[in-house]
Amino acid sequence: MLFWDKYDQATKLHKSHVCLGLDSDIEMIPSHLLKHDNPIWEFNKEIVDATKNRVGAYKLNFAFYLSNGPAGLDALLRTINHIPSYVPIILDVKVGDISNTMVHYAKAFYEYFKVDSLTVNPLMGEDVFTPLLTYKDKFLFALVITSNRSATDFLKKNDLYVEIANKVNKLGHKKVGAVIGATNPKELKEVRNFMPEALFLIPGIGAQGGNLFDVVTNTIASKKNPAILINSSRGIIFKDNSPNYIEAVVQETEELRRTINQLI
Amino acid sequence: MLFWDKYDQATKLHKSHVCLGLDSDIEMIPSHLLKHDNPIWEFNKEIVDATKNRVGAYKLNFAFYLSNGPAGLDALLRTINHIPSYVPIILDVKVGDISNTMVHYAKAFYEYFKVDSLTVNPLMGEDVFTPLLTYKDKFLFALVITSNRSATDFLKKNDLYVEIANKVNKLGHKKVGAVIGATNPKELKEVRNFMPEALFLIPGIGAQGGNLFDVVTNTIASKKNPAILINSSRGIIFKDNSPNYIEAVVQETEELRRTINQLI
Repeated sequence: MLFWDKYDQATKLHKSHVCLGLDSDIEMIPSHLLKHDNPIWEFNKEIVDATKNRVGAYKLNFAFYLSNGPAGLDALLRTINHIPSYVPIILDVKVGDISNTMVHYAKAFYEYFKVDSLTVNPLMGEDVFTPLLTYKDKFLFALVITSNRSATDFLKKNDLYVEIANKVNKLGHKKVGAVIGATNPKELKEVRNFMPEALFLIPGIGAQGGNLFDVVTNTIASKKNPAILINSSRGIIFKDNSPNYIEAVVQETEELRRTINQLI
Repeated sequence: MLFWDKYDQATKLHKSHVCLGLDSDIEMIPSHLLKHDNPIWEFNKEIVDATKNRVGAYKLNFAFYLSNGPAGLDALLRTINHIPSYVPIILDVKVGDISNTMVHYAKAFYEYFKVDSLTVNPLMGEDVFTPLLTYKDKFLFALVITSNRSATDFLKKNDLYVEIANKVNKLGHKKVGAVIGATNPKELKEVRNFMPEALFLIPGIGAQGGNLFDVVTNTIASKKNPAILINSSRGIIFKDNSPNYIEAVVQETEELRRTINQLI
Protein backbone atom coordinates (compact mmCIF):
# COMPACT_ATOMS: atom_id res chain seq x y z
CA MET A 1 0.00 0.00 0.00
CA LEU A 2 1.39 3.41 -0.98
CA PHE A 3 2.43 5.83 1.75
CA TRP A 4 0.03 8.40 0.32
CA ASP A 5 -2.93 6.03 0.36
CA LYS A 6 -2.19 5.21 3.99
CA TYR A 7 -1.80 8.88 4.83
CA ASP A 8 -5.09 9.82 3.16
CA GLN A 9 -6.97 6.97 4.76
CA ALA A 10 -5.64 7.45 8.31
CA THR A 11 -5.92 11.25 8.40
CA LYS A 12 -9.43 11.27 6.87
CA LEU A 13 -10.92 8.23 8.58
CA HIS A 14 -9.59 9.29 11.99
CA LYS A 15 -9.93 13.03 11.32
CA SER A 16 -6.48 13.29 12.79
CA HIS A 17 -3.24 15.11 12.02
CA VAL A 18 -1.62 13.72 15.13
CA CYS A 19 1.62 11.82 14.62
CA LEU A 20 2.13 9.84 17.79
CA GLY A 21 5.82 9.46 18.58
CA LEU A 22 6.75 6.15 20.15
CA ASP A 23 10.00 7.30 21.78
CA SER A 24 9.66 4.31 24.05
CA ASP A 25 12.52 4.86 26.47
CA ILE A 26 12.80 1.80 28.71
CA GLU A 27 13.90 4.04 31.57
CA MET A 28 10.65 6.02 31.40
CA ILE A 29 7.94 3.41 30.82
CA PRO A 30 5.60 2.49 33.70
CA SER A 31 7.46 0.21 36.09
CA HIS A 32 4.72 -2.42 36.27
CA LEU A 33 5.62 -3.35 32.66
CA LEU A 34 9.22 -4.25 33.53
CA LYS A 35 8.14 -7.73 34.65
CA HIS A 36 7.40 -8.67 31.02
CA ASP A 37 9.95 -10.34 28.73
CA ASN A 38 9.92 -7.34 26.45
CA PRO A 39 8.60 -4.30 28.32
CA ILE A 40 8.96 -1.90 25.37
CA TRP A 41 6.81 -4.14 23.21
CA GLU A 42 4.13 -4.44 25.94
CA PHE A 43 4.14 -0.66 26.34
CA ASN A 44 3.83 -0.03 22.59
CA LYS A 45 1.19 -2.71 22.07
CA GLU A 46 -1.09 -1.16 24.70
CA ILE A 47 -0.57 2.31 23.27
CA VAL A 48 -1.22 1.21 19.68
CA ASP A 49 -4.36 -0.69 20.74
CA ALA A 50 -5.70 2.43 22.44
CA THR A 51 -4.72 5.01 19.79
CA LYS A 52 -4.82 3.25 16.42
CA ASN A 53 -8.16 4.91 15.53
CA ARG A 54 -7.06 8.34 16.73
CA VAL A 55 -3.84 9.14 14.86
CA GLY A 56 -2.77 10.10 11.34
CA ALA A 57 0.59 8.37 11.68
CA TYR A 58 3.04 6.83 14.10
CA LYS A 59 6.66 7.89 14.37
CA LEU A 60 9.12 5.44 15.88
CA ASN A 61 12.46 6.82 17.04
CA PHE A 62 15.12 4.28 16.10
CA ALA A 63 17.54 5.22 18.92
CA PHE A 64 15.20 4.10 21.68
CA TYR A 65 14.97 0.61 20.20
CA LEU A 66 18.60 0.21 19.19
CA SER A 67 19.77 1.15 22.69
CA ASN A 68 17.90 -1.85 24.06
CA GLY A 69 19.84 -4.35 21.93
CA PRO A 70 18.15 -7.30 20.20
CA ALA A 71 15.08 -7.00 22.47
CA GLY A 72 14.68 -3.39 21.39
CA LEU A 73 14.84 -4.25 17.70
CA ASP A 74 12.39 -7.08 18.29
CA ALA A 75 10.03 -4.60 19.99
CA LEU A 76 10.40 -2.29 16.99
CA LEU A 77 9.56 -5.04 14.53
CA ARG A 78 6.61 -6.33 16.55
CA THR A 79 5.23 -2.81 16.98
CA ILE A 80 5.44 -2.20 13.23
CA ASN A 81 3.59 -5.45 12.56
CA HIS A 82 0.95 -4.55 15.13
CA ILE A 83 0.07 -1.13 13.70
CA PRO A 84 -2.95 -1.36 11.31
CA SER A 85 -1.75 -1.70 7.75
CA TYR A 86 -3.46 1.54 6.63
CA VAL A 87 -1.73 3.78 9.23
CA PRO A 88 1.58 5.17 7.94
CA ILE A 89 4.70 4.45 9.99
CA ILE A 90 7.58 6.91 9.98
CA LEU A 91 10.95 5.71 11.25
CA ASP A 92 12.77 8.67 12.76
CA VAL A 93 16.38 7.78 12.03
CA LYS A 94 17.72 10.95 10.34
CA VAL A 95 19.70 8.76 7.98
CA GLY A 96 22.11 10.43 5.58
CA ASP A 97 24.67 8.52 3.57
CA ILE A 98 25.30 7.78 -0.09
CA SER A 99 25.38 5.12 -2.83
CA ASN A 100 25.66 1.51 -1.72
CA THR A 101 25.47 2.43 1.97
CA MET A 102 22.11 4.04 1.38
CA VAL A 103 20.97 0.97 -0.58
CA HIS A 104 21.68 -1.10 2.51
CA TYR A 105 19.84 1.30 4.82
CA ALA A 106 16.86 1.10 2.45
CA LYS A 107 17.07 -2.69 2.61
CA ALA A 108 17.12 -2.58 6.42
CA PHE A 109 14.35 -0.03 6.92
CA TYR A 110 12.04 -0.77 3.99
CA GLU A 111 12.51 -4.50 3.48
CA TYR A 112 13.38 -5.79 6.95
CA PHE A 113 11.53 -3.35 9.24
CA LYS A 114 8.96 -2.50 6.53
CA VAL A 115 8.26 1.12 7.50
CA ASP A 116 6.54 3.52 5.10
CA SER A 117 8.71 6.53 5.56
CA LEU A 118 12.06 7.72 6.92
CA THR A 119 13.41 10.98 8.23
CA VAL A 120 16.48 11.93 6.20
CA ASN A 121 19.44 14.19 6.94
CA PRO A 122 20.15 16.04 3.67
CA LEU A 123 23.64 17.37 4.52
CA MET A 124 25.41 15.30 1.82
CA GLY A 125 22.98 16.53 -0.83
CA GLU A 126 20.83 14.83 -3.42
CA ASP A 127 22.95 11.65 -3.42
CA VAL A 128 21.35 10.77 -0.07
CA PHE A 129 17.89 10.68 -1.64
CA THR A 130 18.59 8.96 -4.95
CA PRO A 131 18.73 5.32 -3.75
CA LEU A 132 15.69 5.83 -1.49
CA LEU A 133 13.58 7.33 -4.27
CA THR A 134 13.63 4.05 -6.20
CA TYR A 135 11.07 2.78 -3.66
CA LYS A 136 7.96 4.26 -5.27
CA ASP A 137 5.56 3.31 -2.46
CA LYS A 138 7.59 5.06 0.26
CA PHE A 139 8.00 8.65 1.42
CA LEU A 140 10.78 10.72 2.96
CA PHE A 141 10.87 13.65 5.37
CA ALA A 142 14.01 15.76 4.97
CA LEU A 143 15.27 17.83 7.90
CA VAL A 144 14.67 21.43 6.80
CA ILE A 145 14.60 23.38 10.05
CA THR A 146 14.83 21.64 13.41
CA SER A 147 13.45 22.50 16.83
CA ASN A 148 16.72 22.40 18.81
CA ARG A 149 18.66 25.45 20.05
CA SER A 150 21.79 24.85 17.99
CA ALA A 151 19.78 24.87 14.75
CA THR A 152 21.30 28.36 14.62
CA ASP A 153 24.80 26.84 14.12
CA PHE A 154 24.18 25.83 10.52
CA LEU A 155 20.52 25.42 9.47
CA LYS A 156 19.50 28.98 10.33
CA LYS A 157 22.81 30.48 9.19
CA ASN A 158 23.27 31.75 5.63
CA ASP A 159 19.73 30.52 4.89
CA LEU A 160 20.80 26.88 4.68
CA TYR A 161 17.21 25.83 5.49
CA VAL A 162 16.04 27.76 2.43
CA GLU A 163 18.60 25.95 0.25
CA ILE A 164 17.38 22.63 1.62
CA ALA A 165 13.72 23.61 1.07
CA ASN A 166 14.52 24.42 -2.56
CA LYS A 167 16.23 21.07 -3.05
CA VAL A 168 13.31 19.21 -1.49
CA ASN A 169 10.90 21.08 -3.78
CA LYS A 170 12.94 19.93 -6.78
CA LEU A 171 12.74 16.31 -5.65
CA GLY A 172 8.94 16.67 -5.67
CA HIS A 173 6.38 17.01 -2.89
CA LYS A 174 4.87 13.63 -3.73
CA LYS A 175 8.13 11.96 -2.73
CA VAL A 176 9.75 14.15 -0.08
CA GLY A 177 8.26 16.24 2.71
CA ALA A 178 9.94 18.32 5.38
CA VAL A 179 10.67 18.14 9.08
CA ILE A 180 9.87 21.62 10.42
CA GLY A 181 10.59 22.24 14.11
CA ALA A 182 7.69 23.91 15.92
CA THR A 183 10.04 26.18 17.86
CA ASN A 184 10.74 28.42 14.86
CA PRO A 185 7.78 30.85 14.92
CA LYS A 186 9.45 33.34 12.58
CA GLU A 187 10.29 30.77 9.93
CA LEU A 188 7.14 28.59 9.99
CA LYS A 189 5.10 30.75 7.64
CA GLU A 190 8.11 31.51 5.47
CA VAL A 191 8.90 27.82 4.97
CA ARG A 192 5.28 27.08 4.07
CA ASN A 193 5.47 29.85 1.47
CA PHE A 194 8.62 28.25 0.02
CA MET A 195 7.00 24.80 0.06
CA PRO A 196 3.31 25.33 -0.64
CA GLU A 197 2.47 21.66 -1.22
CA ALA A 198 4.95 19.75 0.94
CA LEU A 199 3.80 17.50 3.73
CA PHE A 200 5.28 18.83 6.99
CA LEU A 201 6.21 16.63 9.92
CA ILE A 202 6.30 19.00 12.87
CA PRO A 203 8.00 17.99 16.13
CA GLY A 204 8.71 20.35 19.00
CA ILE A 205 5.31 21.24 20.47
CA GLY A 206 4.79 20.76 24.19
CA ALA A 207 8.03 19.81 26.02
CA GLN A 208 10.18 21.71 23.53
CA GLY A 209 8.02 24.82 23.75
CA GLY A 210 6.37 25.19 20.34
CA ASN A 211 2.99 26.95 20.52
CA LEU A 212 0.25 24.89 18.89
CA PHE A 213 -1.83 27.84 17.72
CA ASP A 214 1.14 29.48 15.96
CA VAL A 215 2.26 26.17 14.53
CA VAL A 216 -1.03 25.11 12.98
CA THR A 217 -2.11 28.49 11.69
CA ASN A 218 1.30 29.20 10.13
CA THR A 219 1.91 25.82 8.54
CA ILE A 220 -1.35 24.51 7.09
CA ALA A 221 -1.24 24.36 3.30
CA SER A 222 -5.03 24.80 3.03
CA LYS A 223 -8.14 24.04 5.05
CA LYS A 224 -9.00 21.19 2.72
CA ASN A 225 -5.53 19.72 2.60
CA PRO A 226 -3.57 20.96 5.62
CA ALA A 227 -0.50 18.77 4.76
CA ILE A 228 0.70 18.66 8.35
CA LEU A 229 1.42 15.93 10.83
CA ILE A 230 1.98 17.34 14.31
CA ASN A 231 4.16 15.02 16.33
CA SER A 232 3.95 14.53 20.06
CA SER A 233 5.93 11.87 21.88
CA ARG A 234 6.85 12.28 25.54
CA GLY A 235 3.97 14.69 26.20
CA ILE A 236 1.55 11.87 25.42
CA ILE A 237 3.21 8.55 26.15
CA PHE A 238 4.91 9.58 29.42
CA LYS A 239 2.20 11.92 30.75
CA ASP A 240 1.35 9.38 33.44
CA ASN A 241 3.49 6.44 34.44
CA SER A 242 1.02 4.73 36.73
CA PRO A 243 -0.49 1.34 35.72
CA ASN A 244 -3.43 3.36 34.31
CA TYR A 245 -1.17 5.29 31.93
CA ILE A 246 -3.30 4.39 28.92
CA GLU A 247 -6.09 6.68 30.10
CA ALA A 248 -3.75 9.65 29.94
CA VAL A 249 -2.39 8.52 26.55
CA VAL A 250 -5.92 8.46 25.10
CA GLN A 251 -6.89 11.76 26.73
CA GLU A 252 -3.78 13.60 25.51
CA THR A 253 -4.01 12.14 22.00
CA GLU A 254 -7.69 13.13 21.75
CA GLU A 255 -7.02 16.62 23.10
CA LEU A 256 -4.24 17.21 20.58
CA ARG A 257 -6.37 15.79 17.76
CA ARG A 258 -9.35 18.02 18.60
CA THR A 259 -7.26 21.14 19.15
CA ILE A 260 -5.49 20.75 15.80
CA ASN A 261 -8.81 20.18 14.05
CA GLN A 262 -10.29 23.31 15.64
CA LEU A 263 -7.32 25.38 14.47
CA ILE A 264 -7.34 24.12 10.89
CA MET B 1 41.38 2.20 27.05
CA LEU B 2 41.17 5.72 25.64
CA PHE B 3 40.63 6.18 21.91
CA TRP B 4 43.83 8.20 21.72
CA ASP B 5 45.91 5.54 23.44
CA LYS B 6 44.59 2.97 20.99
CA TYR B 7 45.23 5.29 18.06
CA ASP B 8 48.81 5.99 19.18
CA GLN B 9 49.55 2.35 19.81
CA ALA B 10 48.06 0.97 16.59
CA THR B 11 49.48 3.64 14.26
CA LYS B 12 52.95 3.51 15.81
CA LEU B 13 53.27 -0.21 16.46
CA HIS B 14 51.98 -1.10 12.98
CA LYS B 15 53.51 1.98 11.30
CA SER B 16 50.15 2.31 9.61
CA HIS B 17 47.72 5.09 8.77
CA VAL B 18 45.42 2.69 6.99
CA CYS B 19 41.84 2.59 8.20
CA LEU B 20 40.43 -0.64 6.84
CA GLY B 21 36.74 -0.29 6.08
CA LEU B 22 34.69 -3.38 6.72
CA ASP B 23 31.78 -2.54 4.40
CA SER B 24 30.95 -6.21 4.46
CA ASP B 25 28.16 -6.41 1.92
CA ILE B 26 26.73 -9.94 1.96
CA GLU B 27 26.08 -9.69 -1.78
CA MET B 28 29.77 -9.12 -2.48
CA ILE B 29 31.60 -11.51 -0.17
CA PRO B 30 33.25 -14.63 -1.64
CA SER B 31 30.54 -17.18 -2.34
CA HIS B 32 32.33 -20.08 -0.60
CA LEU B 33 31.58 -18.29 2.70
CA LEU B 34 27.81 -18.38 2.19
CA LYS B 35 27.66 -21.95 3.54
CA HIS B 36 28.45 -20.68 7.04
CA ASP B 37 25.76 -19.76 9.60
CA ASN B 38 26.94 -16.17 9.59
CA PRO B 39 28.91 -15.46 6.39
CA ILE B 40 29.61 -11.80 7.23
CA TRP B 41 31.18 -12.80 10.53
CA GLU B 42 33.35 -15.47 8.83
CA PHE B 43 34.45 -12.93 6.23
CA ASN B 44 35.32 -10.30 8.83
CA LYS B 45 37.07 -12.76 11.14
CA GLU B 46 39.42 -13.90 8.39
CA ILE B 47 40.12 -10.31 7.35
CA VAL B 48 40.79 -9.14 10.92
CA ASP B 49 43.07 -12.15 11.57
CA ALA B 50 45.10 -11.28 8.48
CA THR B 51 45.23 -7.48 8.91
CA LYS B 52 45.15 -6.77 12.64
CA ASN B 53 48.91 -6.02 12.71
CA ARG B 54 48.79 -3.90 9.55
CA VAL B 55 46.18 -1.20 10.21
CA GLY B 56 45.82 1.96 12.29
CA ALA B 57 42.08 1.51 12.72
CA TYR B 58 39.04 -0.36 11.47
CA LYS B 59 35.89 1.36 10.25
CA LEU B 60 32.66 -0.61 10.27
CA ASN B 61 29.80 0.72 8.18
CA PHE B 62 26.60 0.23 10.17
CA ALA B 63 24.30 -0.05 7.12
CA PHE B 64 25.90 -3.27 5.85
CA TYR B 65 25.22 -5.00 9.17
CA LEU B 66 21.77 -3.59 9.84
CA SER B 67 20.56 -4.67 6.38
CA ASN B 68 21.29 -8.27 7.30
CA GLY B 69 18.93 -8.23 10.31
CA PRO B 70 19.81 -9.87 13.63
CA ALA B 71 22.57 -11.95 11.96
CA GLY B 72 24.16 -8.76 10.69
CA LEU B 73 24.14 -7.12 14.10
CA ASP B 74 25.54 -10.31 15.59
CA ALA B 75 28.34 -10.23 13.00
CA LEU B 76 29.01 -6.60 13.93
CA LEU B 77 29.23 -7.38 17.63
CA ARG B 78 31.42 -10.44 17.11
CA THR B 79 33.74 -8.53 14.80
CA ILE B 80 34.13 -5.74 17.36
CA ASN B 81 34.96 -8.30 20.05
CA HIS B 82 37.47 -10.00 17.76
CA ILE B 83 39.49 -6.87 16.91
CA PRO B 84 42.52 -6.52 19.24
CA SER B 85 41.67 -4.24 22.16
CA TYR B 86 44.38 -1.71 21.26
CA VAL B 87 43.15 -1.11 17.67
CA PRO B 88 40.56 1.70 17.49
CA ILE B 89 37.17 0.87 15.99
CA ILE B 90 35.19 3.57 14.20
CA LEU B 91 31.50 2.94 13.58
CA ASP B 92 30.51 4.75 10.40
CA VAL B 93 26.91 5.64 11.16
CA LYS B 94 26.78 9.42 10.42
CA VAL B 95 24.50 9.82 13.40
CA GLY B 96 22.97 13.22 14.05
CA ASP B 97 20.17 13.81 16.50
CA ILE B 98 19.73 15.67 19.79
CA SER B 99 19.15 15.39 23.54
CA ASN B 100 17.66 12.14 24.83
CA THR B 101 17.72 10.51 21.37
CA MET B 102 21.47 11.04 21.23
CA VAL B 103 21.83 9.63 24.74
CA HIS B 104 20.20 6.44 23.46
CA TYR B 105 22.43 6.27 20.39
CA ALA B 106 25.44 6.64 22.71
CA LYS B 107 24.09 3.82 24.85
CA ALA B 108 23.67 1.62 21.76
CA PHE B 109 27.02 2.35 20.11
CA TYR B 110 29.29 2.87 23.13
CA GLU B 111 27.77 0.56 25.72
CA TYR B 112 26.19 -2.21 23.67
CA PHE B 113 28.44 -2.36 20.59
CA LYS B 114 31.42 -0.88 22.47
CA VAL B 115 33.06 1.00 19.61
CA ASP B 116 35.67 3.69 20.23
CA SER B 117 34.47 6.30 17.81
CA LEU B 118 31.52 7.37 15.67
CA THR B 119 31.09 9.39 12.52
CA VAL B 120 28.69 12.26 13.22
CA ASN B 121 26.47 14.37 10.97
CA PRO B 122 26.71 17.92 12.36
CA LEU B 123 23.71 19.45 10.52
CA MET B 124 21.69 20.07 13.72
CA GLY B 125 24.64 21.84 15.33
CA GLU B 126 26.46 21.51 18.64
CA ASP B 127 23.48 19.81 20.33
CA VAL B 128 24.38 16.67 18.38
CA PHE B 129 27.80 16.48 20.02
CA THR B 130 26.96 17.42 23.61
CA PRO B 131 25.60 14.06 24.84
CA LEU B 132 28.40 12.14 23.07
CA LEU B 133 31.15 14.29 24.57
CA THR B 134 30.30 13.06 28.08
CA TYR B 135 32.08 9.82 27.11
CA LYS B 136 35.65 10.93 27.83
CA ASP B 137 37.33 7.81 26.42
CA LYS B 138 35.64 8.08 23.01
CA PHE B 139 36.22 10.15 19.87
CA LEU B 140 34.06 11.60 17.12
CA PHE B 141 34.60 12.32 13.44
CA ALA B 142 32.30 15.07 12.14
CA LEU B 143 31.43 15.21 8.45
CA VAL B 144 33.20 18.34 7.21
CA ILE B 145 33.53 17.78 3.46
CA THR B 146 32.42 14.56 1.85
CA SER B 147 33.62 12.70 -1.24
CA ASN B 148 30.29 12.42 -3.08
CA ARG B 149 29.24 14.49 -6.06
CA SER B 150 26.32 16.26 -4.43
CA ALA B 151 28.57 17.62 -1.68
CA THR B 152 28.21 20.74 -3.83
CA ASP B 153 24.49 20.97 -2.91
CA PHE B 154 25.15 22.22 0.63
CA LEU B 155 28.60 21.44 2.07
CA LYS B 156 30.55 23.23 -0.64
CA LYS B 157 28.00 26.03 -1.00
CA ASN B 158 28.31 29.26 1.01
CA ASP B 159 31.38 27.74 2.71
CA LEU B 160 29.28 25.50 4.95
CA TYR B 161 32.27 23.15 5.32
CA VAL B 162 34.30 26.06 6.70
CA GLU B 163 31.56 26.82 9.24
CA ILE B 164 31.55 23.17 10.30
CA ALA B 165 35.36 23.11 10.52
CA ASN B 166 35.25 26.14 12.83
CA LYS B 167 32.65 24.49 15.05
CA VAL B 168 34.70 21.29 15.24
CA ASN B 169 37.78 23.32 16.17
CA LYS B 170 35.84 24.91 19.03
CA LEU B 171 34.81 21.49 20.35
CA GLY B 172 38.50 20.61 20.54
CA HIS B 173 40.74 18.41 18.42
CA LYS B 174 41.25 15.98 21.28
CA LYS B 175 37.54 15.13 21.15
CA VAL B 176 36.41 15.64 17.57
CA GLY B 177 38.15 15.04 14.24
CA ALA B 178 36.90 15.46 10.71
CA VAL B 179 35.77 13.33 7.80
CA ILE B 180 37.43 14.84 4.74
CA GLY B 181 36.56 13.29 1.38
CA ALA B 182 39.62 12.54 -0.76
CA THR B 183 37.85 13.76 -3.90
CA ASN B 184 38.20 17.43 -2.95
CA PRO B 185 41.75 18.29 -4.16
CA LYS B 186 41.17 22.06 -3.99
CA GLU B 187 39.85 22.00 -0.46
CA LEU B 188 42.16 19.41 1.16
CA LYS B 189 45.03 21.80 1.95
CA GLU B 190 42.63 24.58 2.87
CA VAL B 191 40.80 22.41 5.39
CA ARG B 192 44.11 21.32 6.94
CA ASN B 193 45.05 24.98 7.30
CA PHE B 194 41.75 25.62 9.09
CA MET B 195 42.21 22.57 11.30
CA PRO B 196 45.96 22.24 11.92
CA GLU B 197 45.70 19.65 14.69
CA ALA B 198 42.53 17.70 13.86
CA LEU B 199 42.62 13.99 13.13
CA PHE B 200 41.31 13.47 9.60
CA LEU B 201 39.43 10.36 8.53
CA ILE B 202 39.76 10.32 4.76
CA PRO B 203 37.49 8.16 2.61
CA GLY B 204 37.24 8.34 -1.16
CA ILE B 205 40.58 7.11 -2.48
CA GLY B 206 40.53 4.35 -5.09
CA ALA B 207 37.00 3.54 -6.27
CA GLN B 208 35.76 7.08 -5.66
CA GLY B 209 38.73 8.61 -7.49
CA GLY B 210 40.78 10.44 -4.87
CA ASN B 211 44.50 10.58 -5.73
CA LEU B 212 46.65 9.21 -2.90
CA PHE B 213 49.65 11.47 -3.55
CA ASP B 214 47.51 14.63 -3.45
CA VAL B 215 45.59 13.42 -0.45
CA VAL B 216 48.55 12.55 1.76
CA THR B 217 50.75 15.51 0.86
CA ASN B 218 47.89 17.99 1.28
CA THR B 219 46.44 16.65 4.52
CA ILE B 220 49.31 15.56 6.81
CA ALA B 221 49.54 17.79 9.88
CA SER B 222 53.28 17.12 10.22
CA LYS B 223 55.81 14.40 9.41
CA LYS B 224 56.01 13.45 13.08
CA ASN B 225 52.27 13.49 13.68
CA PRO B 226 50.46 13.17 10.35
CA ALA B 227 47.02 13.02 12.02
CA ILE B 228 45.45 11.13 9.12
CA LEU B 229 43.66 7.84 8.73
CA ILE B 230 43.19 6.94 5.07
CA ASN B 231 40.21 4.68 4.63
CA SER B 232 39.90 1.99 2.03
CA SER B 233 37.01 -0.44 1.99
CA ARG B 234 35.87 -2.09 -1.26
CA GLY B 235 39.26 -1.59 -2.92
CA ILE B 236 40.78 -3.93 -0.34
CA ILE B 237 38.13 -6.33 0.91
CA PHE B 238 36.50 -7.02 -2.47
CA LYS B 239 39.63 -6.94 -4.63
CA ASP B 240 39.40 -10.69 -5.14
CA ASN B 241 36.37 -12.81 -4.38
CA SER B 242 37.96 -16.20 -4.88
CA PRO B 243 38.47 -18.53 -1.90
CA ASN B 244 42.02 -17.09 -1.68
CA TYR B 245 40.71 -13.55 -1.20
CA ILE B 246 42.75 -13.05 1.95
CA GLU B 247 46.00 -12.91 -0.09
CA ALA B 248 44.66 -9.89 -2.00
CA VAL B 249 43.38 -8.28 1.20
CA VAL B 250 46.85 -8.52 2.75
CA GLN B 251 48.61 -7.37 -0.41
CA GLU B 252 46.35 -4.33 -0.90
CA THR B 253 46.51 -3.35 2.77
CA GLU B 254 50.30 -3.58 2.76
CA GLU B 255 50.60 -1.63 -0.47
CA LEU B 256 48.40 1.16 0.86
CA ARG B 257 50.28 1.17 4.18
CA ARG B 258 53.70 1.44 2.47
CA THR B 259 52.60 4.03 -0.08
CA ILE B 260 51.15 6.29 2.62
CA ASN B 261 54.33 5.93 4.71
CA GLN B 262 56.51 6.83 1.71
CA LEU B 263 54.44 9.96 1.07
CA ILE B 264 54.45 11.17 4.67
